[in-house]
Amino acid sequence: MNTEEGMKINIVQNVLAYNKEHAKVNRDLFKENRVYVVNLLSSPGAGKTSLIIETIKKLKDRYSIGVIEGDIASTHDAEKIRRYTSQVVQINTGGSCHLNASMINKAIEKLNLAKIDLLFIENVGNLICPVGFDLGEDSMAVISSVSEGDDKPVKYPKVFIKSDLILLNKIDMLGLADFNKDFFTGKIRELNTRAEVFELSCIKGTGLSDWTDWISAAADNK
Amino acid sequence: MNTEEGMKINIVQNVLAYNKEHAKVNRDLFKENRVYVVNLLSSPGAGKTSLIIETIKKLKDRYSIGVIEGDIASTHDAEKIRRYTSQVVQINTGGSCHLNASMINKAIEKLNLAKIDLLFIENVGNLICPVGFDLGEDSMAVISSVSEGDDKPVKYPKVFIKSDLILLNKIDMLGLADFNKDFFTGKIRELNTRAEVFELSCIKGTGLSDWTDWISAAADNK
Repeated sequence: MNTEEGMKINIVQNVLAYNKEHAKVNRDLFKENRVYVVNLLSSPGAGKTSLIIETIKKLKDRYSIGVIEGDIASTHDAEKIRRYTSQVVQINTGGSCHLNASMINKAIEKLNLAKIDLLFIENVGNLICPVGFDLGEDSMAVISSVSEGDDKPVKYPKVFIKSDLILLNKIDMLGLADFNKDFFTGKIRELNTRAEVFELSCIKGTGLSDWTDWISAAADNK
Repeated sequence: MNTEEGMKINIVQNVLAYNKEHAKVNRDLFKENRVYVVNLLSSPGAGKTSLIIETIKKLKDRYSIGVIEGDIASTHDAEKIRRYTSQVVQINTGGSCHLNASMINKAIEKLNLAKIDLLFIENVGNLICPVGFDLGEDSMAVISSVSEGDDKPVKYPKVFIKSDLILLNKIDMLGLADFNKDFFTGKIRELNTRAEVFELSCIKGTGLSDWTDWISAAADNK
């Protein structure tokens, strides 16, 4: 190992240790305020924002729902979500490919956690880099969409291994895309036997009740 | 700036300088062998592999086409492509979120460059991290697909700014997805006035001739 590699490994270890400290602070705050937190990961365009909006629509009379929007640039998604809840904070990472716990730490200062039951953190659209960064959440969720194809678990295994929730979105596109559901489900189960799996169409509303039942129970039990 | 930040900046500068050196070696080799090289970027599942396969099918009698497949894990795509050309090399990044020039340097040792006219490098499915790494290519191309939504240029601007070719794939899904083509095209042109833009459906074959005409001319002129 040369000096540069050694320095790189040190830096990575420092970054992860620093992240772990902030994740603990966040987790303690979420616990103290009884906020159930979901860290939502996916490829760009798999439906993170749509899922958040549909969930708020269905649960807004029973729960107060907050959202932290993570993007490289723009306030595009936060503006969309602000129509459905006032508890929204936009993080612009300024180029960084993932959210970290320190960014969340700063973002929650702008929310009233005592008045939130359920918090969604929409991570940057990226199946790879966000996986290693604990944000202090209760559940890591990955959305994979039918239009991306059935081979995502084979090609990006880590996010499927580490997720607590696996949501297959855009099932209305089955038959239109090259997607074998048995292949996808089989591969997921090879990687992860414990995750809850949901099949959804945010556009058609399919499967949303199963999802909102699950997330309601999780919020109630925190 | 604390010491850790300073060290991080140094490391990033070293990594990019190291990449630049290897990119130059690759570029010289490609020039010497008159190989036209496309570095293909997109979100997971936007259609990089399908585009490569359809391009080979249309051009295989006129050009010898090589492919370097970049993935975190698996040989899934290389196996698919091997049905259409024997000049395929798989790179598994082992977790890394992008290809770098040094990986390409090692991969081309396994190809017979003197016998290749056109080389596609399929990068890791990621709209963010691969953008900063020159691989020695002639053109950086981004594929964005209709099913991902029309806001990708707003949310991931850098890849659209830096790309020489912008390919809008899955146009057969217009009308099925929440996608306003005028919005997408307008945003692209705000970011990049010089890129060639193609509209394609790899499944239906739409627009493929315009694309293969362009790439043929590029290969002929190298």
